[in-house]
Amino acid sequence: MQQLGRAARAAAAVLALAPTERKDAALRAAAAAIRERSAAILEANARDVADAGARDMAASLIDRLKLDGARVEGIAKGLEDVAALPDPIGTVMAEWDRPNGLRIARVRVPLGVIGIVYESRPNVTADAGGLCLKSGNACILRGGSDSFESSRAIIACMRDGLRVAGLPEDAIQLVPTTDRAAVGIMLTMVDDIDVIIPRGGKSLIQRVAAESRIPVIKHLDGICHVYVDAAADPAKARDIVLNAKMRRTSVCGAAETLLVDRSVSETVLPAVLDALIAAGCEVRGDEATRRIDGRAVPATAADWDTEYLDAIISVRVVDGVDAAIEHVNRHGSHHTDSIVTEDAAAAEKFLSQVDSAIVLLNASTQFADGGEFGMGAEIGISTGKLHARGPVGAEQLTSYKYQVRGTGQVRP
Amino acid sequence: MQQLGRAARAAAAVLALAPTERKDAALRAAAAAIRERSAAILEANARDVADAGARDMAASLIDRLKLDGARVEGIAKGLEDVAALPDPIGTVMAEWDRPNGLRIARVRVPLGVIGIVYESRPNVTADAGGLCLKSGNACILRGGSDSFESSRAIIACMRDGLRVAGLPEDAIQLVPTTDRAAVGIMLTMVDDIDVIIPRGGKSLIQRVAAESRIPVIKHLDGICHVYVDAAADPAKARDIVLNAKMRRTSVCGAAETLLVDRSVSETVLPAVLDALIAAGCEVRGDEATRRIDGRAVPATAADWDTEYLDAIISVRVVDGVDAAIEHVNRHGSHHTDSIVTEDAAAAEKFLSQVDSAIVLLNASTQFADGGEFGMGAEIGISTGKLHARGPVGAEQLTSYKYQVRGTGQVRP
Repeated sequence: MQQLGRAARAAAAVLALAPTERKDAALRAAAAAIRERSAAILEANARDVADAGARDMAASLIDRLKLDGARVEGIAKGLEDVAALPDPIGTVMAEWDRPNGLRIARVRVPLGVIGIVYESRPNVTADAGGLCLKSGNACILRGGSDSFESSRAIIACMRDGLRVAGLPEDAIQLVPTTDRAAVGIMLTMVDDIDVIIPRGGKSLIQRVAAESRIPVIKHLDGICHVYVDAAADPAKARDIVLNAKMRRTSVCGAAETLLVDRSVSETVLPAVLDALIAAGCEVRGDEATRRIDGRAVPATAADWDTEYLDAIISVRVVDGVDAAIEHVNRHGSHHTDSIVTEDAAAAEKFLSQVDSAIVLLNASTQFADGGEFGMGAEIGISTGKLHARGPVGAEQLTSYKYQVRGTGQVRP
Repeated sequence: MQQLGRAARAAAAVLALAPTERKDAALRAAAAAIRERSAAILEANARDVADAGARDMAASLIDRLKLDGARVEGIAKGLEDVAALPDPIGTVMAEWDRPNGLRIARVRVPLGVIGIVYESRPNVTADAGGLCLKSGNACILRGGSDSFESSRAIIACMRDGLRVAGLPEDAIQLVPTTDRAAVGIMLTMVDDIDVIIPRGGKSLIQRVAAESRIPVIKHLDGICHVYVDAAADPAKARDIVLNAKMRRTSVCGAAETLLVDRSVSETVLPAVLDALIAAGCEVRGDEATRRIDGRAVPATAADWDTEYLDAIISVRVVDGVDAAIEHVNRHGSHHTDSIVTEDAAAAEKFLSQVDSAIVLLNASTQFADGGEFGMGAEIGISTGKLHARGPVGAEQLTSYKYQVRGTGQVRP
């Protein structure tokens, strides 16, 4: 592991100064290598899948693990998309002159070495590696043991891409063992890794957060809310709630709890519940909700703090926007929350007082996505406030430095 | 401690939404209270100084601890200066429209609760508390036990200011014990403290970094360099080196090592060394330096990694800008480094390749200061790359959120 770290640090120094064209060439060459060696990647993946089957892995997890031709093409295309993004490095973020003639510029630079710890989805290998490369960072990837062979095959292509472009292969490295202790060691390598990004389930992220001696950019759970205000447009409320919950139930931006103002609970809520139930969603309601729709099962206290990631929604009737804000700030995960209203004052109150990375007015929580924000690919949604909040794309994987140009100034 | 944490969290929620006028009124009222109760503050400080004397504290430390009328006035004035700064909170950092009509705004918000752990200088109590208040953050201050009485007297004035302005007093709290274990507890309060900022010597910062379960904004040592290039203007080289080293030797931006290109070591260096030695600076040189000036004592390997914070400089002759960059990146602390040259290519190479928070061309390293950058007051200089790098002022004590305004959009 120490050797990996030193190699990454050395590669990072080169990558930090690499011109955009060379980084993009490496990304495109990696994409080409992935297409060219699609058969070998699928073969490696088949070994992972067979192993997982022998260990009785759940079908849903095997589905996330399994690659096919289209998924491999998606991985290659993803790298080309990252190549097409603007390069954040070298951007002058701000520039100003001081009365003494000093000219100060704040310039984007890479973070250095990024450690990424993730679970079974092999595409993360390319997505995360590609974003790190684009942003001039070296990375050390530690994939799930389930996807080890697949990740190794993909990494080989990424390293080929680097070599073809004349960049150090060690800018992207895979931890070469599935030994669980390797993660523990990785999380203590404070000299050689600048930031750790865990991607996966809650238990992985909690373990990383608890053990890491290196700063962590966390992507915790998404307990997202839609609040239907007294002044909500009923059709918008129905469409937004349905989409926020049911478009895809497994994403972190999926809504888990619906809050409805009491004054419209009998007028607007019934159609919303009809739409949800018709779409196959289980409704867990508080007493007021169950009086309105008997199909709702009782919600328990635990429901307000649960990320279902499934076709289940908890529903609570509240007294106005203040009570909604209080519920969201108490029970939410500071991820993404939406208000449906035509009342500008209620909207601005919700947008400013809900303490979440993303707050929306009259739009689905499922827009919580770097691509939908126009930021290109993302490595996840940060629910922390330090360094990066919300979608973490190439720009969020950067730091800055101050370049100060003078003509002989000394400080009085 | 837990009670402190909960009170801070509750106060932070109020402060996050406080209008600029009210925060500024609190700062000005605190300044007024400090002036009004100057005698009580000086009395409290006299008790601290007497205790410190009884414990045989070093004279230089007692000097840092000791307040007088002018220093108290400086503290009050400092708070008024912070009140006069622009409020970073609520600023729209970026705003754009998506093809689907969503309008996305990235808006500055406070971090939440900031824990500050510092040593004996009582003015940090007001400086740090004031900056946190300005940026809408609650803070928990843990001052050195040496300055406990002084800090308590200052904090009382700050809390009065908050009360006068109708803001929660618990937005600024002092850990009410000098028990060393309290710091250990503070560093584990992950739910109630969002970021820890240590201010003080290397051992304090290392302890905090090693123990903290909360993210830390580090202000490590400043091993700063001046590199005199082959194309340096000799007079600028002399003035900049002298100022960088000797203006104040105890600040983190003071230069510790001088690097000189071999080609000008016999022409430019002698006058630089004359100026340093005339100003009372001890010179520790490598062999080449000592051949040029016999007054230089031999530098050992440890000198290149030492922050003297004293009238001592290490001097090394190097072969060109590449060797200088290598030396700085290997031995420096990624704080502040300067090149003296009239060669634009060498300058740009140094500015882009030296991996430090602040890199300067033809200017003294002593400009490493938030005030000199035009950022107003600062809480320190961050040598880390995550979240904040370089001077940490009110703006660096913020995070952001995305406010997304739609008209009923759902995600396809």
